[in-house]
Amino acid sequence: MLTFFFNAAPNPLKVGLFLEEAGLKYRAVPIDTKKGDQHSPGFRAINPNGKVPAIDDGGVIVFDSNAILLYLAEKTGKFLNGDSLSERAELLSWLMFIASGVGPYSGQAVHFRNFAPERLAYPIKRYDYEARRHWRIVDDRLAKRRFMLGDTYTIVDMAIWGWAPRIPFMLGDENAMTQFPNLDRLMAELDARPAAQAALALKDRYAFKTEFDEEAMRHMYPQIFAPEPD
Amino acid sequence: MLTFFFNAAPNPLKVGLFLEEAGLKYRAVPIDTKKGDQHSPGFRAINPNGKVPAIDDGGVIVFDSNAILLYLAEKTGKFLNGDSLSERAELLSWLMFIASGVGPYSGQAVHFRNFAPERLAYPIKRYDYEARRHWRIVDDRLAKRRFMLGDTYTIVDMAIWGWAPRIPFMLGDENAMTQFPNLDRLMAELDARPAAQAALALKDRYAFKTEFDEEAMRHMYPQIFAPEPD
Repeated sequence: MLTFFFNAAPNPLKVGLFLEEAGLKYRAVPIDTKKGDQHSPGFRAINPNGKVPAIDDGGVIVFDSNAILLYLAEKTGKFLNGDSLSERAELLSWLMFIASGVGPYSGQAVHFRNFAPERLAYPIKRYDYEARRHWRIVDDRLAKRRFMLGDTYTIVDMAIWGWAPRIPFMLGDENAMTQFPNLDRLMAELDARPAAQAALALKDRYAFKTEFDEEAMRHMYPQIFAPEPD
Repeated sequence: MLTFFFNAAPNPLKVGLFLEEAGLKYRAVPIDTKKGDQHSPGFRAINPNGKVPAIDDGGVIVFDSNAILLYLAEKTGKFLNGDSLSERAELLSWLMFIASGVGPYSGQAVHFRNFAPERLAYPIKRYDYEARRHWRIVDDRLAKRRFMLGDTYTIVDMAIWGWAPRIPFMLGDENAMTQFPNLDRLMAELDARPAAQAALALKDRYAFKTEFDEEAMRHMYPQIFAPEPD
């Protein structure tokens, strides 16, 4: 049996999509990050980084959303592009572009525009620019391809599907998706899939804390309350 | 023939270490990011993200340092940990922990402490805290293991080797490594390897621009000069 440690954030959603698309049986365990579940010794033994998602696949622990996507794709043989060296190179390059670029820069854009203790002009500008630049690269690629790697739906598309709905929030513009029409088309195609709807519905079965109060801030952004560094 | 597009930054260094350790023949092509080489149409055709490292392996293009490490390890069968599901899970989890956590947060810590147009207290604190937290997880893991995945030297260690020397610079403390004694021990072990010395010496064969003047800032941090977002 596979256990899926999750919450409603973009990174767990990607894994939820894979589990539903692949038809894998799983037990979902909510980790309420606004209540600090991610810092419990039990969860730290699973992911020392204290973040969701993580999975326990019959005793095999995997953490980090993109690691889980690649692990499950390799294990099941599903949602990969092909076995040639060039196909493997393309999959790894774009998956890592999302892991090291799209995700982190999108996350920083969300943080400084919406959650930092002050609205600071330069960090907002830096991450607005970098998030936009990364999504522009994705959109340009999708102008010539149905999916990120061509005609085949892969884990790279799943990784994008988790984050793209946050674009309006990270850029502070409810109409932001009009600037990324090719990405918007892919999102509509994926959203229409039953697996996507099932992945989105998963969080509604659990009562996650919703208030972004001081308790939530202390658990999610402990650096805000840390002493000043030297 | 393999072409290695590189500069002296942490991410290309990791790939240089692999190439030297594996004894692969390669042609090094310097990309002077302070002069804007990364923005040329020719290089953008290789990596649309405009970053080094990238490789052209006999026509197979791979970009992102961790994608290249995994691609080369899989292709050569070298510097991996093993074939079991649990070994694969461990490799992917820790490689992605570096790709999505150690690297991006270390990079932001370097930027806000050293290169941002103003010294802003909150971003410096946020990234100091997060960089330290990530390196603490690495150091704790190395307290009980010779290498990141146990007794075997893998691409995960190479990925760490690229970034760890920047810890004093990113934390603004020349003695910062005393806080990470296990990591310091691994770095000393890796630095003593001929391949590490060869990887470090590569940059000295080329005349990279060293001045961090306005030209360099415009090429490396274009968001500083961008208009304010809405």
